[in-house]
Amino acid sequence: MRHTRRVDASTGPNPEDPTVTPPLRIALAQINATVGDIDGNTRRILDAMRAAEEAGAELVAFPELALTGYPPEDLLLKPAFISANLRALDQIARASRDCVAIVGFVDRQDDIFNAAAVLHGGRVVARYHKQYLPNYGVFDEDRYFRRGIEAPVFRLGEITIGVNICEDIWYAVGPTNAQSLAGAELIVNINASPFSDEKRSYRRKMLATRAGDNQVAVAYVNLVGGQDELVFDGASMVFAPSGDMLCHGKAFAEDLVIVDVDVAGVFRARLHDPRRRKAHLGQPVTRSEPIVIAERRTVPERAPRAVCMADVEISRVEEIYRALVLGVRDYMHKNGFTRAVLGLSGGIDSSLVAAVAADAIGAENVLGVSMPSRYSSQHSKDDARDLAEALGMEYRVVPIERGFQGLLDTMAETFAGLKEDVTEENMQARVRGQILMAISNKLGHLVLTTGNKSEVATGYATLYGDMAGGFAVIKDVPKMLVYALCRHRNAVGARPVIPESVLTKPPSAELRPDQTDQDSLPPYEVLDAILEAYVEDDRPIQEIVACGQFDVEVVRQVIGLVDRAEYKRRQAAPGIKVTPRAFGRDRRLPITNRFRE
Amino acid sequence: MRHTRRVDASTGPNPEDPTVTPPLRIALAQINATVGDIDGNTRRILDAMRAAEEAGAELVAFPELALTGYPPEDLLLKPAFISANLRALDQIARASRDCVAIVGFVDRQDDIFNAAAVLHGGRVVARYHKQYLPNYGVFDEDRYFRRGIEAPVFRLGEITIGVNICEDIWYAVGPTNAQSLAGAELIVNINASPFSDEKRSYRRKMLATRAGDNQVAVAYVNLVGGQDELVFDGASMVFAPSGDMLCHGKAFAEDLVIVDVDVAGVFRARLHDPRRRKAHLGQPVTRSEPIVIAERRTVPERAPRAVCMADVEISRVEEIYRALVLGVRDYMHKNGFTRAVLGLSGGIDSSLVAAVAADAIGAENVLGVSMPSRYSSQHSKDDARDLAEALGMEYRVVPIERGFQGLLDTMAETFAGLKEDVTEENMQARVRGQILMAISNKLGHLVLTTGNKSEVATGYATLYGDMAGGFAVIKDVPKMLVYALCRHRNAVGARPVIPESVLTKPPSAELRPDQTDQDSLPPYEVLDAILEAYVEDDRPIQEIVACGQFDVEVVRQVIGLVDRAEYKRRQAAPGIKVTPRAFGRDRRLPITNRFRE
Repeated sequence: MRHTRRVDASTGPNPEDPTVTPPLRIALAQINATVGDIDGNTRRILDAMRAAEEAGAELVAFPELALTGYPPEDLLLKPAFISANLRALDQIARASRDCVAIVGFVDRQDDIFNAAAVLHGGRVVARYHKQYLPNYGVFDEDRYFRRGIEAPVFRLGEITIGVNICEDIWYAVGPTNAQSLAGAELIVNINASPFSDEKRSYRRKMLATRAGDNQVAVAYVNLVGGQDELVFDGASMVFAPSGDMLCHGKAFAEDLVIVDVDVAGVFRARLHDPRRRKAHLGQPVTRSEPIVIAERRTVPERAPRAVCMADVEISRVEEIYRALVLGVRDYMHKNGFTRAVLGLSGGIDSSLVAAVAADAIGAENVLGVSMPSRYSSQHSKDDARDLAEALGMEYRVVPIERGFQGLLDTMAETFAGLKEDVTEENMQARVRGQILMAISNKLGHLVLTTGNKSEVATGYATLYGDMAGGFAVIKDVPKMLVYALCRHRNAVGARPVIPESVLTKPPSAELRPDQTDQDSLPPYEVLDAILEAYVEDDRPIQEIVACGQFDVEVVRQVIGLVDRAEYKRRQAAPGIKVTPRAFGRDRRLPITNRFRE
Repeated sequence: MRHTRRVDASTGPNPEDPTVTPPLRIALAQINATVGDIDGNTRRILDAMRAAEEAGAELVAFPELALTGYPPEDLLLKPAFISANLRALDQIARASRDCVAIVGFVDRQDDIFNAAAVLHGGRVVARYHKQYLPNYGVFDEDRYFRRGIEAPVFRLGEITIGVNICEDIWYAVGPTNAQSLAGAELIVNINASPFSDEKRSYRRKMLATRAGDNQVAVAYVNLVGGQDELVFDGASMVFAPSGDMLCHGKAFAEDLVIVDVDVAGVFRARLHDPRRRKAHLGQPVTRSEPIVIAERRTVPERAPRAVCMADVEISRVEEIYRALVLGVRDYMHKNGFTRAVLGLSGGIDSSLVAAVAADAIGAENVLGVSMPSRYSSQHSKDDARDLAEALGMEYRVVPIERGFQGLLDTMAETFAGLKEDVTEENMQARVRGQILMAISNKLGHLVLTTGNKSEVATGYATLYGDMAGGFAVIKDVPKMLVYALCRHRNAVGARPVIPESVLTKPPSAELRPDQTDQDSLPPYEVLDAILEAYVEDDRPIQEIVACGQFDVEVVRQVIGLVDRAEYKRRQAAPGIKVTPRAFGRDRRLPITNRFRE
């Protein structure tokens, strides 16, 4: 799982000169841990420790809570879980040798802490407790942990190292700063940082600034993998004290990034930095002596390492596509599913979900079911079939007419004399839900739902109908982004898989004759812009009207739909967070709520 | 909404003696606020202020966040929401006169705070910011608020008063202690404390201890009403500095409790208390001067008030029954529903839900639907009808056969050659879900689901089938407690409403011939004990086996069921928290989770 590229060897320091500190070879092990799988995570950690040693690394760092998986949520309230994690840490510590290992785990002292253990020579040399516990967005760490108060530094030979955890480094005045002032030349920051749109570039800028501000090398290791609604994107990075990026791990895949970090110039540069000397004023400073880990092994003739620069430049849309693929694969495999089923309507949403599923678990494991009704158009049926063929997935047609008629008969007496309305539309959608769930129950497939964020936001979906299923792949993907992802998938594959007509025809639920989505909703360009302003930015009506020159009645209608659909979203399947503010873990509103602004 | 009982007038101080501080007449306004309904809550507050003044109160206290409702969740991330609440506070302040009002609201300074405003004479005299923000169980206050750091005291004439908020008083060393050491003779503690089983007696003990330890009178005012999964139970209380309870408001209903609090003896008693003098050592103490609110009005000839002692002694089961009734009523009415529909199976769960619904919104607004299948027994159909008649609710029979057959036909080709299994059971349950949802869509009833906590825990329920609906009334009521609640309802009503046979026959889902719940589950006595140990107490397998002398395989089976049903619970309707650890807001476990202990 290594991915490297050669760089000019002359950039390394001179190994002939004994007065110069040779660079430190470090490894960043971005593993795909599973929540609660302490044995499996332990094996992954031990394997990566061996691989790092074989590559000559002197230090290997693992992600935040690598031992338990992240986020463990209320597993942290089980004493047996804490104990199992401590036993595993002990096992890993005993297996540690010359290469220093930094491992995320749950420490138990007078309380529990989100912690990093520094392991060397068969034992736990030191521990660090996370100081800044995030408790916003998808994070709830104040619920579980006490915050740490000490920011020690460590010595590996002549090199001074600070270890801290995730959120800690987002504070300009925090452990990174304190450890740097206490002499740290390298900060090892271990993370479980979930993906969202454009977060990676934000992270990169922040880390470069932190390195430059503190004249310190920064090694940032991130978790990778899907966990319920979150996808961790890996993309571990190392920055030179100048703020220059030295290497970059794969995005959305496991990786073992190995790099030689040169900190020989740090002390010299700091002697010339007048600001640093005054930065102590009013700052928290570690006054205690560094904790000595070990002398460094002599590595006189070691050549500089090739430098890994995987996935630095991938587009925003590709990043999201990969997040969806990894999210589906991990949700399925970590929960013991090999096969998925979804309804293929011939529309764009189910086409995207089919493509993602095929890429995630193999087209041979995906079953597409076309469930035509009396209102289904021929082009929809054709498009669904063409898509399934292009992807190479299994495809079935199960007409809903008999099931629908049976239900109409069932309700005939109760509804005698009442007019047809949205009830009958919902009944059709629910027969489709029944069919997919029956296949799931009988054959063991996981049902993937196909609603996008614009629908989830406005409640343009039927509870127990098209919302029925185990995983809602694109629930956090707005409709306009659905189009972009389809075009991306068509562009990067060997040949297009999503029929062109799917991309161009007007979206329709086909639950009554000649229906289109725009009978009930504003055009998706307008809708998505209003939704972003309301759902993600929490802007009030007048501000939304002003910023997009929208019609005030349209804005009011959309906001009303969003507010009233909260009860539906509570019963939606989990799905992958893609935007900065996903419904669910991220945006937590009451159902009972009379505020309308 | 007043409820009082006379006590011996001689316990009051002597109004003839001018050297003795006359008692302070205070009012506790336990209002039923609605989240987001700032205008409505403002009206409720203004009305109670007038009523308190008319009753001669010198001080009236409202619950925590009375202005916004509790918990406002991510409404707190909307600037427009904060502004609207501040405008409302301003309006209330302008309406304040001689009677001091203490009102819970969201303050905005350099950040936002969970705050109490002290209002008098048309203006905001002072503010208090909550210091201890709960972030466990159902609480997420660290997500929203900055914590306060000051604990001022106020002067009303010669009486010194400390104001603090909810969680603050649960800390022995905290604002209550600091304010008492700073001279407070009365602590006004404003709350939004949700109900759970046996919490009220725990609260009462704690408050009595806090009063006694600090030699301070404690006025505890609590919110009342249902908000999504929470029910606030009111039951406001006042304690004398001795720790004796002076009065007690209604449980599960609005109330305006008015009481004369005598603090004349506090200073004298403190002069005789050697421990108090040393309690300052190492404690946070408010050193600033008290904030003077006003002189007291002279009330020479005022007679001691009647003392309210409503609902002090109600049984545990009655308390829970009332919580369910209030929870259903408020969820429905606050969300604009007047009528409910539910499936009546003739079993005990749906019988309880029907009785609760009838008591909550009137039997005339509840529609019971019997949905017999080929496997339904005659006694089930009879019991369902008898129950509906006893309650006086509307009742319909809608057989599921035709709908079920339509679906079997729909799936015939796909399932050709495969055996019948649980799929067909689920299909029947889902036809029932379809019927209830169709009625809801067509006629506007809210669907109440009838699954109990034992079923929700073990996943003994069908997604989109019997789990389909808008509100899950008894999802946090274990099966054994369902029986107790039914017996309670039969005992307290004019005559029994739940047929005796419902209470005695073996529980069955009737989805195949001669099925009973105990084909798949251990007896409910055993099941509920194991569930309590695992779900509420987070005990590991071996400890559960040891504490109940259960069979290890049974314990393992139950735990496995609970863990695997997490995905179902994520899609369950919201329902009323009754136990100390409800699924949902309270017990937050990952779906993807390999920990099994």
